[in-house]
Amino acid sequence: MTEMPEPAAPPIAVIGGTSTNATIAELACAVGREIANRGGVLICGGRGGVMEHSARGAREAGGTAIGILPGRPGEDTPNIYLQHRIFTGIGQARNQVLVLSAVAVIAVSGGWGTLSEIALALKHRIPVVLLSSLEIRPPDGRDEPLLFQSQTPVEAVAIAFANARRFS
Amino acid sequence: MTEMPEPAAPPIAVIGGTSTNATIAELACAVGREIANRGGVLICGGRGGVMEHSARGAREAGGTAIGILPGRPGEDTPNIYLQHRIFTGIGQARNQVLVLSAVAVIAVSGGWGTLSEIALALKHRIPVVLLSSLEIRPPDGRDEPLLFQSQTPVEAVAIAFANARRFS
Amino acid sequence: MTEMPEPAAPPIAVIGGTSTNATIAELACAVGREIANRGGVLICGGRGGVMEHSARGAREAGGTAIGILPGRPGEDTPNIYLQHRIFTGIGQARNQVLVLSAVAVIAVSGGWGTLSEIALALKHRIPVVLLSSLEIRPPDGRDEPLLFQSQTPVEAVAIAFANARRFS
Amino acid sequence: MTEMPEPAAPPIAVIGGTSTNATIAELACAVGREIANRGGVLICGGRGGVMEHSARGAREAGGTAIGILPGRPGEDTPNIYLQHRIFTGIGQARNQVLVLSAVAVIAVSGGWGTLSEIALALKHRIPVVLLSSLEIRPPDGRDEPLLFQSQTPVEAVAIAFANARRFS
Repeated sequence: MTEMPEPAAPPIAVIGGTSTNATIAELACAVGREIANRGGVLICGGRGGVMEHSARGAREAGGTAIGILPGRPGEDTPNIYLQHRIFTGIGQARNQVLVLSAVAVIAVSGGWGTLSEIALALKHRIPVVLLSSLEIRPPDGRDEPLLFQSQTPVEAVAIAFANARRFS
Repeated sequence: MTEMPEPAAPPIAVIGGTSTNATIAELACAVGREIANRGGVLICGGRGGVMEHSARGAREAGGTAIGILPGRPGEDTPNIYLQHRIFTGIGQARNQVLVLSAVAVIAVSGGWGTLSEIALALKHRIPVVLLSSLEIRPPDGRDEPLLFQSQTPVEAVAIAFANARRFS
Repeated sequence: MTEMPEPAAPPIAVIGGTSTNATIAELACAVGREIANRGGVLICGGRGGVMEHSARGAREAGGTAIGILPGRPGEDTPNIYLQHRIFTGIGQARNQVLVLSAVAVIAVSGGWGTLSEIALALKHRIPVVLLSSLEIRPPDGRDEPLLFQSQTPVEAVAIAFANARRFS
Repeated sequence: MTEMPEPAAPPIAVIGGTSTNATIAELACAVGREIANRGGVLICGGRGGVMEHSARGAREAGGTAIGILPGRPGEDTPNIYLQHRIFTGIGQARNQVLVLSAVAVIAVSGGWGTLSEIALALKHRIPVVLLSSLEIRPPDGRDEPLLFQSQTPVEAVAIAFANARRFS
């Protein structure tokens, strides 16, 4: 009989815009590093900007980076730091795949696309940690216990691990 | 040779939560009626709440209501006011189908799911008109020319028609 | 209190390749006409070839044609015979939306894409009627009670209506 | 400056039914082992049957197994041999994600669902290798250069690697 393999590492999604400045790039990279340092797997949208820098951070720390891409192979350009590239071919609907596959989401920056992912994660009751200047409020004004603020990459990842949904 | 058929009516998406109070229900119904009165097609998520009341309004005014449902037939319960039911079986990823099929989106109320749709529409550059108390701000603080506020159902629909993306 | 609206017309999907010859085009058109004549709604993939000719047939008979398109508006070119265009933006995964939204599927011709749709419909237990020269066998060699052969468009549509899944 | 990381291992998809007999289970396991032995990554649908046995084989040989699941976490039951679980929440439409993410597909057995995946892979011009008794013919009767027959797991994997689409 085969022995039960070791449990997989918890996947943490890092989301944010494709265009970044040096500050955002360094924040994203530090988040990726810290996820790897704590034994997590980094999953991201697979493209440039925050996705690329967080994947780079995970790889630099010896971790695993997985990209969930919107396009098909050939039409989509994955960043070079991904060990595994999941080509969905379903466009922005791939955000659902990203948040459902994560035990927690860390949002580093971004515009409407990132906001859409944050809201979708919370709709699915996946915890979301905001880093840097992102400011999100529930549209109905109610308190949201799964939405967290953080000041540093290390704090963001600590909150993500502490509040991760049960990984089964 | 076949003659070119008449151009189809412009589809306007109405979005909002599944749970409503009497005020929200009446707003949604009035939006649906006004869309039909102006010759538009109402498209919605196909379920209850704002989706149902807006579809009811469109039907009462002699118009067409189409539902884009998250589930499969049998597992999903479409409201009774839809002439056409599109069962996607892709869960919340059906929000992408809804916003891409519309020339404008009107948001009546709602929580994280509705916010996710609003942000997704704007990511795809589909105009969004907010009605009632919804308050949304771009996460990066930039001005968003495709996001509109309205005070009444008639005004919301007028703004939607005036700013609809080109329908081709 | 609002009265219950009349039940919607049963949607029948017509599938087949984008490239057709005159024979296939006429078959597809005749299938569309017959669906409309029997009070059904024609749903198709929204593009050219069999999709376009079946939609043309439905329109010529005074019926309704709905297209479920793989792309986004602008990147996809719907045929001119559709009253309603559902832009999914999920590529070939839109085949799932097409078969789940139908009470029966009629396959007129086609290659791997059409075979994929036929198999997907049967996986979901939606009846499939084959017209013209298409020959499909279950991969496991078992008898498939939901797969039908037909010789003419009128016979194909009659079988589709007679075996349609319950429309609720 | 960061050095370019090593290229990722080529992902090979193994597909087949959820119900298997001992012969099919051993074939699937041997395919998974051989993929790992040759340095590939095993990707599969993440559930039981052929998916589980191929993942078990890859793990036994020290390789990596990734599951692309149809459901959401909690509603879907991944097999225990996966290092990474991608929850799509898009139902059978996840077959598109599976074939697009692979450089080649090996089909071990199965019914309509597997046939649908085979046809979808070929529609996207991903090579498909058939093992065991599966017999598939192009619906239009044309020769298909990307569809291969094999007699043993080792031969199936050899053909898959030899004909894999360019991995970029």
